[in-house]
Amino acid sequence: MQFLTKGYKETTQDILNDAIFDENHEEMVIVKDIDLFSLCEHHLVPFFGKVHIAYLPNKKVVGLSKLARIVEIYSRRLQVQERLTKQIASAISEALEPAGVAVVIEAVHMCMVMRGVQKMNASTVTTVMLGRFHDDPKTREEFLALTSMK
Amino acid sequence: MQFLTKGYKETTQDILNDAIFDENHEEMVIVKDIDLFSLCEHHLVPFFGKVHIAYLPNKKVVGLSKLARIVEIYSRRLQVQERLTKQIASAISEALEPAGVAVVIEAVHMCMVMRGVQKMNASTVTTVMLGRFHDDPKTREEFLALTSMK
Amino acid sequence: MQFLTKGYKETTQDILNDAIFDENHEEMVIVKDIDLFSLCEHHLVPFFGKVHIAYLPNKKVVGLSKLARIVEIYSRRLQVQERLTKQIASAISEALEPAGVAVVIEAVHMCMVMRGVQKMNASTVTTVMLGRFHDDPKTREEFLALTSMK
Amino acid sequence: MQFLTKGYKETTQDILNDAIFDENHEEMVIVKDIDLFSLCEHHLVPFFGKVHIAYLPNKKVVGLSKLARIVEIYSRRLQVQERLTKQIASAISEALEPAGVAVVIEAVHMCMVMRGVQKMNASTVTTVMLGRFHDDPKTREEFLALTSMK
Amino acid sequence: MQFLTKGYKETTQDILNDAIFDENHEEMVIVKDIDLFSLCEHHLVPFFGKVHIAYLPNKKVVGLSKLARIVEIYSRRLQVQERLTKQIASAISEALEPAGVAVVIEAVHMCMVMRGVQKMNASTVTTVMLGRFHDDPKTREEFLALTSMK
Amino acid sequence: MQFLTKGYKETTQDILNDAIFDENHEEMVIVKDIDLFSLCEHHLVPFFGKVHIAYLPNKKVVGLSKLARIVEIYSRRLQVQERLTKQIASAISEALEPAGVAVVIEAVHMCMVMRGVQKMNASTVTTVMLGRFHDDPKTREEFLALTSMK
Amino acid sequence: MQFLTKGYKETTQDILNDAIFDENHEEMVIVKDIDLFSLCEHHLVPFFGKVHIAYLPNKKVVGLSKLARIVEIYSRRLQVQERLTKQIASAISEALEPAGVAVVIEAVHMCMVMRGVQKMNASTVTTVMLGRFHDDPKTREEFLALTSMK
Amino acid sequence: MQFLTKGYKETTQDILNDAIFDENHEEMVIVKDIDLFSLCEHHLVPFFGKVHIAYLPNKKVVGLSKLARIVEIYSRRLQVQERLTKQIASAISEALEPAGVAVVIEAVHMCMVMRGVQKMNASTVTTVMLGRFHDDPKTREEFLALTSMK
Amino acid sequence: MQFLTKGYKETTQDILNDAIFDENHEEMVIVKDIDLFSLCEHHLVPFFGKVHIAYLPNKKVVGLSKLARIVEIYSRRLQVQERLTKQIASAISEALEPAGVAVVIEAVHMCMVMRGVQKMNASTVTTVMLGRFHDDPKTREEFLALTSMK
Amino acid sequence: MQFLTKGYKETTQDILNDAIFDENHEEMVIVKDIDLFSLCEHHLVPFFGKVHIAYLPNKKVVGLSKLARIVEIYSRRLQVQERLTKQIASAISEALEPAGVAVVIEAVHMCMVMRGVQKMNASTVTTVMLGRFHDDPKTREEFLALTSMK
Repeated sequence: MQFLTKGYKETTQDILNDAIFDENHEEMVIVKDIDLFSLCEHHLVPFFGKVHIAYLPNKKVVGLSKLARIVEIYSRRLQVQERLTKQIASAISEALEPAGVAVVIEAVHMCMVMRGVQKMNASTVTTVMLGRFHDDPKTREEFLALTSMK
Repeated sequence: MQFLTKGYKETTQDILNDAIFDENHEEMVIVKDIDLFSLCEHHLVPFFGKVHIAYLPNKKVVGLSKLARIVEIYSRRLQVQERLTKQIASAISEALEPAGVAVVIEAVHMCMVMRGVQKMNASTVTTVMLGRFHDDPKTREEFLALTSMK
Repeated sequence: MQFLTKGYKETTQDILNDAIFDENHEEMVIVKDIDLFSLCEHHLVPFFGKVHIAYLPNKKVVGLSKLARIVEIYSRRLQVQERLTKQIASAISEALEPAGVAVVIEAVHMCMVMRGVQKMNASTVTTVMLGRFHDDPKTREEFLALTSMK
Repeated sequence: MQFLTKGYKETTQDILNDAIFDENHEEMVIVKDIDLFSLCEHHLVPFFGKVHIAYLPNKKVVGLSKLARIVEIYSRRLQVQERLTKQIASAISEALEPAGVAVVIEAVHMCMVMRGVQKMNASTVTTVMLGRFHDDPKTREEFLALTSMK
Repeated sequence: MQFLTKGYKETTQDILNDAIFDENHEEMVIVKDIDLFSLCEHHLVPFFGKVHIAYLPNKKVVGLSKLARIVEIYSRRLQVQERLTKQIASAISEALEPAGVAVVIEAVHMCMVMRGVQKMNASTVTTVMLGRFHDDPKTREEFLALTSMK
Repeated sequence: MQFLTKGYKETTQDILNDAIFDENHEEMVIVKDIDLFSLCEHHLVPFFGKVHIAYLPNKKVVGLSKLARIVEIYSRRLQVQERLTKQIASAISEALEPAGVAVVIEAVHMCMVMRGVQKMNASTVTTVMLGRFHDDPKTREEFLALTSMK
Repeated sequence: MQFLTKGYKETTQDILNDAIFDENHEEMVIVKDIDLFSLCEHHLVPFFGKVHIAYLPNKKVVGLSKLARIVEIYSRRLQVQERLTKQIASAISEALEPAGVAVVIEAVHMCMVMRGVQKMNASTVTTVMLGRFHDDPKTREEFLALTSMK
Repeated sequence: MQFLTKGYKETTQDILNDAIFDENHEEMVIVKDIDLFSLCEHHLVPFFGKVHIAYLPNKKVVGLSKLARIVEIYSRRLQVQERLTKQIASAISEALEPAGVAVVIEAVHMCMVMRGVQKMNASTVTTVMLGRFHDDPKTREEFLALTSMK
Repeated sequence: MQFLTKGYKETTQDILNDAIFDENHEEMVIVKDIDLFSLCEHHLVPFFGKVHIAYLPNKKVVGLSKLARIVEIYSRRLQVQERLTKQIASAISEALEPAGVAVVIEAVHMCMVMRGVQKMNASTVTTVMLGRFHDDPKTREEFLALTSMK
Repeated sequence: MQFLTKGYKETTQDILNDAIFDENHEEMVIVKDIDLFSLCEHHLVPFFGKVHIAYLPNKKVVGLSKLARIVEIYSRRLQVQERLTKQIASAISEALEPAGVAVVIEAVHMCMVMRGVQKMNASTVTTVMLGRFHDDPKTREEFLALTSMK
C-alpha cells in the first residue's frame, strides 16, 4: 500500500530540475505506451493501462524518461482517471511552457471486471488537450495518427 | 428467459443516483468494448457484440461502471439494435446533461447466421450522436480515432 | 449452375414486402462483412468476397437480414462487379427511400488468380455512394472509419 | 533474364484492345495488392512488392485483369520505382480517359537489404495521382482509406 | 564503440555525390521502416527503432539506399532523438532542394527500460516537417496514411 | 424455430446415397472449420462454433460437402455438445466403414455468456475418436497437428 | 470486498446438485478460457487470467456452466494460485468421479506488476493433473494440443 | 477453360529432364505454401489452396521450382483432391527415388461455399506419405513441425 | 552503470528468506515472460528479452515475485547469456530443493544488431534443465507446451 | 556483385579464432531468425530468408555473433540451399566439436516467384542435423519447439 501511494511524497519539480534542456526544436514529441498502474479512489481497486503524452516544445525539451516519472508521481496515489489525465497534462504544461500538451490514457478498471457488472473486456479512454492541441483539430489528428502507427 | 429480460425491472435513476460526481473535467471520456447480449424482438434470437460510449462532461462525471449498467438495463429486453442504441444515448444524455453523447454498437445477429441467409461473418453497426458529437464532424472523427487505437 | 444463377428468379419486392418497419431512427446503419459469391459474366469463373452496406434511414428501417438477401438476389447471376455494386445500391435506395446509401464490395476474381496473369493476392474494390453519402465527404469518411473498426 | 525483361516486347494497346467496355459506372474502382517484381536499372538487383491502382471511370470500364497486365508490361523491364509508377498511371490514363487515376507502389529493394546498408526491413512507397485524384484531397483520402480496409 | 560512433567520419556529400538523378517526378517518395540504432548522449545507453522518410522531388531524385545511408551517418553518433530527426531532414533538404521533407522516428530508449522508471513498453516518436509537409496539413496526412498502410 | 430444428426431418442415408465413391485412397482426409449452429436442449439457447472431421478411408471416399451436410442434420436439433459429437462420428463410421473417424467440436455456449456466470470468453471442446484414431495416439497427434496448421 | 470474497458462502454441492446427467460419453470434455479473478492472500492484491478445465467422463456428464461456477466459488476467496488450481480439480473429481481431471490456470499477479519488481509482462501457469491425466502423458499431451487449437 | 486444363498436355518427364542434380544431401527438403488452383471433377467448380511437399533425397536433388511445376501439371486438370495429392506424391517418388515423400494439400472447395451447404470457412486437408514418411511417425512429426514454423 | 550492475550487491538468501511457504503442491509451476535486461561482458553492450522459469515443488513453494527478483540479481551484472541461465537455475535449485527446475532465456543481443554483422532480427535461446526436467523428456515437452500456450 | 560474393574471401577460422570460450555449459544454445541473403547458382537470382542454428556445447562456447558471421561467409557465394545448410553445420561442427549441431534454413527463391511458375508465396525449408540432433528425435523435437516459441 505504501508502494502504491508513494506518489504523494514526490513533486514534479524534484524530478524535472536538471532534466530540461535548451534544444532548438519546435515539432511534436510523443512518448507513447507508458505503462500505468493506479488505485481507484472509490473502490480502492486497481486500474491500469497505457499513457500517451505529446508536447510541442517551445525551445525547452525534457529528458524523455522524466515524462514517465511524472506519470509515476500522479498514478501512485488514490485517483480518478479523469483527474489523473488532467494532472499529468498540467504538470508538463507548467514545467515546459510548451505550445501544447496532449495526454491520452486508456485503462482497464478492475472494478468493472471483478465486481457486479463483469464487463471483462471494457476499457476507458480519457484525454486532455491543452494549447495548440486544444485549438487546432489538425494537430490533434496528427497526434492520434502518429500514436496509432506501428 | 427471466434473466434475459430482467432489464424491464430496472431504471437508469436507480443506478445513477449516487454515482454522479462534480469533477472539473470537460474533455471526452470513452468507455469502449463493453460486451453486449440482447434478444431480437422479431425472432427471439440473440444478438451480441460490443458497445462504445463517449460523452463530453459538463461538470458532472459518472462512475465508469454505471455506463456499463445502463447498457445492461436496455439490452436485457426484447430489442431492435437501432432502438437500443438510441435508448442508451438518451439515458446518458438525460442523466448527465453533457455537451454531447456518442454511442456505437457493433453486433452479430444470430438470425443472420443461423437462419436462411447464413451470412456467418456479417455484423451490424449502429450509431447515435447527440449534442456536439452530432454538430461537429471533428469531434466525431476524434471519437472514432480514439476508439480504434490499440 | 442453377444454384449459382437462381438470383434471376427473385425480386427485391418479394423479399422486402413485410420487413420494412417504421422506427424513429435517422442515423447511419451499417451491415458489414456480408459474404459474397458470384460468377463473372466474361469468363464464367467465380469471384467472391465481402459486401459492406450503409444507409441513412428516413423513418423506414429494414430487417437486417433483408440487406443480405438483396446481396443474394443480385450476386446469384452472371455479373460484373461494378454493375453488381450499383444494383444493390439502387435496390435499397428504391425500397427504403433513405437519405443515403453506400455499398462497398471487395472481391477476389478467380480469373485473375487462375488464368494467365496469376496475381494471386490481388483483390478489387468497387463503391457506389448515393444521396448524402455522395454529397457529403464527411458522411463517407465516417462510414469508412466505422466499417474499419474492429 | 529474358523472362525478367520480356515487358519490352508488349504494348498496352495489344492488351487492352478488346477489354474496354461501356458500362454506366462513374465511381471509384480499385485493384489492390497486385504482386510486382522488377529489376532496378542501377544495380540489376530485383525489387518487389505490391501495386494498388484506382481509377474513376468515365463511361469506359476495363477488364480487371488487364490492369494487372499493364503492371506486367512495365515491371518486366529495367526500372526505377518512381518511373514505373508514372508509366502505369499514364498507360491507364491514355487508354481509358478516366476522370482520375491513382497508382501506389510499395516495394522492397534487394539493393537495400543485400548490399552495404543492410536495412533489411525498409520498403519504398511511391505514388502518382492524376486528374481528380490529384486535384481533390478528399478523393485521395478515400482511395487510401478503401485500400487500407481489410 | 568505434563502430557505434563512426558516423562522425562521414559526410552527406560523400554519399550523395553520384546518386542524384534527374527524373521527371514530382510526387511523394517514402522510404519507411529503416532500422535505426543510436547512442543517447546523456546516458551512453542505446536507443533504436525505425525511421520513416518522405520527400517531394523537385526534378532531382536520390538513389533510395542513400536515404538509409544518411540515417547511418547521423545515428552513429552520440545523439538526442529530437536533434537526430532534424539533422536527417536538413541533410535531405540541402542535398535535394525538394518541395518538402518529412522525417518520423519511433524509438525505444534503453534508458527508459533498463534504469529506474522501467517503462518497458514505452517508445518515443519525433517528427520534423519541412516545406510543403510543414505548410499543408493534407500532405502531412497523406504521408501518415501511406506510411501506415500494410 | 422450424429452421433451427429441421435436422429431425433428414437422414444421413438420404444425403450420402450417391456421394460415396470408390477411390484407391487410404490416407487421412480432414474437413476442418465447418461452421456449426445448434440449440442447447437444457436452456433452448444457441451454441455455435467449428467442427473438425477426419477419417481414414477404407477404399470408400465421400463427397466433401456431404460431411458438412451430416453436421447440419445433427446440429439442427435440440442438442448436447457431447452427444452431437458422437452422433456425427457414428454416422460417418456407419456410412463409410473407414479405418477410423475423429470429430472435434469447439463451441461457445450462449448459456455461459448470457446468463448468470457470464464467462464471455469461455468455449467448450469435445472429441470422439473411433477406430485407429482411438487406438493409435500417433494418428490422433497427426490429426491435431494437421488441423492446427495454417 | 464482500463481492470479491463471496466464494466462502457457496459450496460445490449447492451448484452441482441437479446438473449432473447420465450421458453415454467417455471422451475428453474441455472448457477453456474461463475468465478468472481472485485476490492473493499475501498482499490482498488481485490476480486474474484464464482457467482451462478438462475431464474424462465416467458415464456422468456435468452442465458446462457448472464448471465455470466451481471456478467462481474458489476464486472469490483469498487465494494462492497453486492452491486454487488444486481445489478446482478436487471439487470436480469428487463430484463427477471421472477417469481424470486436468486444470491449468494462467494468471497475471498485480503484485508482480504494481510493486517493486515491476515485471509487467510476466504471468504464472499452474497445473493439477488427476487420474488418467496424471498417469498417461499422451492424454496430457492431447489436452494441451486441443486447448491450444484456435 | 483451356488454360485451366492445360495440365493434360504436359508430363513430369518433360519438366524434370534436366533439373535433377547429384548433391550429397540426405536430409529433409520441404517446399511449402505452393499456391494451388484446380477444378473439381464433380461440379466443375474451382478448389484452391496450398500444397506442402517434402522429400528425403537419396543422392538426387531436384531444382526447387520443378516441384511447383509438378503441382501445376496435375492441378490443371479435372480433379479430386485425394487423387491429386497421390499423383503429386507418386510423380516425385518415381522421378527422384527418394527415401520418402510427403504431400499435404489444404484447399477450399467452392462447391462447399457457393452451393447449398454454404460452409464458408471450411477447408479440406489431404495427405499422402510414402517411404520413410509412411513408416516412421517421428519423420512425419518433424515434417509437420517444420512446415508449421513461421 | 551503477543501476545496471547493482545485482552484485544482493544475494538470493536476502530475497527468499521469508518467502518460502509449505504448501502441499507437487505439480509444475511456471512463471513466464519475465522481462530481462543485462549487459554482455564482452562488449558492454546490452542484451534483453524474456525469461521463462518452471519448477516442480517438493512441498516448498516460493512467492512468485521472488522468482523475478532472482532474475534481477543475476541479470544486473556483466554477463554471458549461457552463464546467466545456469545461475538462475542453480539459485532456485538450492533454495527450494525442488524435484526439478527449468530455465529458458530468449534474448536479443545489441552486439548482433548494432555492430558489424547487423543481423537485426536474430535472437538467442538458452536453456538449463535440472532434476526431472533433465531426466524426463515428457516433463520438458509439457513445460514447453504450457509456456507456448496463449 | 562483388559484395554479393565476398564470402569467397573469408574463412571460418579467421572469424572464430579468438571467439571460442571455455564455459561450463552443456545445454542447447539456439541463435534463431538470422537474416540470410544468397544467390542461387543456377539462375543467379537471389534467395533470402532465415537461418536457425542450434548446438550442444562440449565445454567450448562461441561468441553469438560469430554464428551469424559463419552464415555470412557461406551465403555470400553462389549457392544451392541444400549445400549452404550443410556447409554452415559442418563449419560449426569442426570449430566447436560440440555434441550436436542443427541448422534449419527457410528461404524464398526469387526464381520461383519471378519466373515462369510464379508461386509467389512458396518457401523452401532445408535441415541438417549432426551428432545428438541426428541420433535423438527428442533433442530435435525440443529444438523445433524452442525455435517456434514467441
